[in-house]
Amino acid sequence: MRLRNVKGKQEILNNHPLIILNPEIYKGKWQELFRNNYPIYIEIGMGKGQFIIQQALRNKHINYIGVEKYDSVIVRALKKINIYIPNLKLIRADAFSIDQIFNKEISLIYLNFSDPWPKKRHANRRLTSKEFLLKYNCIFKSSYQIKLRTDNEELFTYSLITLTNHNYKFKEITLDLTKNREKDHISTEYEDKFVEAGYKVYALSAYRDN
Amino acid sequence: MRLRNVKGKQEILNNHPLIILNPEIYKGKWQELFRNNYPIYIEIGMGKGQFIIQQALRNKHINYIGVEKYDSVIVRALKKINIYIPNLKLIRADAFSIDQIFNKEISLIYLNFSDPWPKKRHANRRLTSKEFLLKYNCIFKSSYQIKLRTDNEELFTYSLITLTNHNYKFKEITLDLTKNREKDHISTEYEDKFVEAGYKVYALSAYRDN
Repeated sequence: MRLRNVKGKQEILNNHPLIILNPEIYKGKWQELFRNNYPIYIEIGMGKGQFIIQQALRNKHINYIGVEKYDSVIVRALKKINIYIPNLKLIRADAFSIDQIFNKEISLIYLNFSDPWPKKRHANRRLTSKEFLLKYNCIFKSSYQIKLRTDNEELFTYSLITLTNHNYKFKEITLDLTKNREKDHISTEYEDKFVEAGYKVYALSAYRDN
Repeated sequence: MRLRNVKGKQEILNNHPLIILNPEIYKGKWQELFRNNYPIYIEIGMGKGQFIIQQALRNKHINYIGVEKYDSVIVRALKKINIYIPNLKLIRADAFSIDQIFNKEISLIYLNFSDPWPKKRHANRRLTSKEFLLKYNCIFKSSYQIKLRTDNEELFTYSLITLTNHNYKFKEITLDLTKNREKDHISTEYEDKFVEAGYKVYALSAYRDN
């Protein structure tokens, strides 16, 4: 994503009730923070937030956490929110530190249009690489669930392979999400662009019983 | 496949050294029939045989068995063969009786451009349905391997799901085999047609450790 500098962003971030700038301090305590027993779903790389905000507004009995690395992107997500959403938090974090932030607390991970890192030597930065799947093992609660969408064919087939090699099975797969969207489908900003441009969007839903 | 009647086909079939018309009698004895210890690979629905014949000619240390339901199709495959190929047999059988023909003898199953059976009520006829995967459990020797190619998106995504739900993992997946063919690639007759017509061919290689 192209990063624009947003004026006064630090002040916005410091004072917003949905933002958590030092998420590590809540490791093992996220359920307490939400003050309920509803499952916690996270989106790693939430970008401008359309997907996770809409999910939170629609599903009151699920807690959502959007993870985003860049302050300026988080600020742009915040601009979409004009009411307090009790089941949503946005946290500033690099995906790589995800296992420093959560400890057996997460029920589902969304990976939407993640960076495909096309070069082989960067493969371990892909969010479905062995490195990340091992981290996810530490943050999932009991059952594991990953839902992925991408327009990138290589990232998609790579993920089909790595997920099965880490004992995930598939519940749903589509090679053309545009054709197979459900009525109440919630899209991401990227997805809207790709669909408009006529690109195919691949999607999968994977689970693992422990 | 359109079936043409071939004149004198019964005589051709009865007298051909590669053909086995009553394969059930060799159940548990295929290795003896080949008189070697090389692994046995089968293609279920070999059609006109281009794929399995080329495989057998190229890989002398693997035994191949082409399975085909229709006499008239087997006869057309035979017309492509003008030498005796010791590591190849062609058998007449319905895929549904596969577990009556083999018993823990097979190392790899090829499924090339199988009938997609698009209607939901026919799903159990697809060669990657639960029904068939359970049959394959009885015919595989130690490790399980299935290689599938299809131009049918629904059959492909269906197979990705059913295979993982029967504990297969993926080794290779491509959504466009045309782009990703290896130098020594062996195609099927259907594949040649589809590729020429500009269709995408999906392919996967699945394995299961027991």
